[in-house]
Amino acid sequence: MFRFYKPIEVRFSDLDVLGHVNNARYLTYMEQARVAYFRMLNLRKPDEPRVGFILASAHIDFRRPILIDSQVRVGVRVTRLGNKSFTMAYRLEDGVSGEVFATAETVQVSFDYANQRSIPLPDAWRQAMASFEGIPPFEESRA
Amino acid sequence: MFRFYKPIEVRFSDLDVLGHVNNARYLTYMEQARVAYFRMLNLRKPDEPRVGFILASAHIDFRRPILIDSQVRVGVRVTRLGNKSFTMAYRLEDGVSGEVFATAETVQVSFDYANQRSIPLPDAWRQAMASFEGIPPFEESRA
Amino acid sequence: MFRFYKPIEVRFSDLDVLGHVNNARYLTYMEQARVAYFRMLNLRKPDEPRVGFILASAHIDFRRPILIDSQVRVGVRVTRLGNKSFTMAYRLEDGVSGEVFATAETVQVSFDYANQRSIPLPDAWRQAMASFEGIPPFEESRA
Amino acid sequence: MFRFYKPIEVRFSDLDVLGHVNNARYLTYMEQARVAYFRMLNLRKPDEPRVGFILASAHIDFRRPILIDSQVRVGVRVTRLGNKSFTMAYRLEDGVSGEVFATAETVQVSFDYANQRSIPLPDAWRQAMASFEGIPPFEESRA
Repeated sequence: MFRFYKPIEVRFSDLDVLGHVNNARYLTYMEQARVAYFRMLNLRKPDEPRVGFILASAHIDFRRPILIDSQVRVGVRVTRLGNKSFTMAYRLEDGVSGEVFATAETVQVSFDYANQRSIPLPDAWRQAMASFEGIPPFEESRA
Repeated sequence: MFRFYKPIEVRFSDLDVLGHVNNARYLTYMEQARVAYFRMLNLRKPDEPRVGFILASAHIDFRRPILIDSQVRVGVRVTRLGNKSFTMAYRLEDGVSGEVFATAETVQVSFDYANQRSIPLPDAWRQAMASFEGIPPFEESRA
Repeated sequence: MFRFYKPIEVRFSDLDVLGHVNNARYLTYMEQARVAYFRMLNLRKPDEPRVGFILASAHIDFRRPILIDSQVRVGVRVTRLGNKSFTMAYRLEDGVSGEVFATAETVQVSFDYANQRSIPLPDAWRQAMASFEGIPPFEESRA
Repeated sequence: MFRFYKPIEVRFSDLDVLGHVNNARYLTYMEQARVAYFRMLNLRKPDEPRVGFILASAHIDFRRPILIDSQVRVGVRVTRLGNKSFTMAYRLEDGVSGEVFATAETVQVSFDYANQRSIPLPDAWRQAMASFEGIPPFEESRA
């Protein structure tokens, strides 16, 4: 289901007083996975230095606590490509035991930092993501 | 709408390379607000040392970036009391300008750490939250 | 001894598995105090947008653990003004009980970001710090 | 010089507004290296569950900024074994280019959590560290 996984090393300082990874770190792990995914697709071009993605929303379902010895990896994929926005799904799991720590979803909006406004997803990015995931290059929002 | 607000001081180290508060810190700010809310209600009893709440899910809608000078305060309230779980709503806003940075929702599950299982919400806690918020002490899940 | 104190709110996520504030957060608390100190002196000028301070070294002596209920405040002061560098001293303490959590020292170097090189401490900054602290505006390094 | 290195993955959220790893994270990276070092030596015994090390002091000399693409590794070693305390030295460097980001030193004190007091370094630990590093098993403090 996921064609891309990012391993994450749990840091001692990620743990809270119960010995569990603090819930805010789940967003950090997802961010690491998302950045690695975009790098893997090699999307950033020298002539588009000011275009990026802004996080519009995030949803996380916590299933099991992550511990210091957990072999965390984050599966990440693009599930829907809209006009200006696109959706990503995540699964935080133990790469050895397969236990699922959390599932999550984020929506990103394509943003032009130079002009400070949202813009349609650059076409090269749209094609790259659609091709990698085997999904339609454009799908209406599920609203 | 919110009867409780928690002011949050933005730390320089909360900022990312764009000068915005990193999205993972929103969960940290919400956690600070949640902990302060429970303290305000004075819920923890000496004879219930091993009962706590586990975060089951979190949803955040990001509206505007938080900057270093933002006067952040987090409005937090309980919106639904179920059998073992309850729902909280949040608004991260600027206490001076009133600008909304984000709205969010989390679901918590009452948990017995000694026996490592979810338990019905302790009745004293249920009553305290219902009374403070002026909501029904029990409401079926919206599932 | 300190003419400036910065109160710090301990965050739940600052704690480690022992219930103590993680040692890395001491540098975060010191950074918050340092930034507040420079703001208090109102040093940054519109025509010096690219001059800043780079941390050259930091030393911390840990005395007592900081807990979630600790009323932390950080005393901070400038103790020596050199040519390009200056030294600051810190005391992390409980503002209520007076207990000392840590003492620390950092050395900063004045840096021109536009030209990526260290520069002599701007004179207005030197005078402001010397005047506020009642120390000599220039002192050779203790090397 | 270092017989043990711990690779560290820089996280996007470790960066500050200048695009450099925030100085507090250096202590986090050192902590990761220290924990890995003790694991490598396999020191913790089932019958010593409440003995640990408390950080007594830390000193860091910052040389070059760490960037998102830096291939960080932390060299760590024990340099002195005292009665109750011991000293560790660190070098944060780029594993590819060899550039040094920082050098550092920490002092740890052996601590009995059950009785809340410092204790002499357990002999098995002393021997293991002395043997691995090829240093004397006991050396007076450099005071």
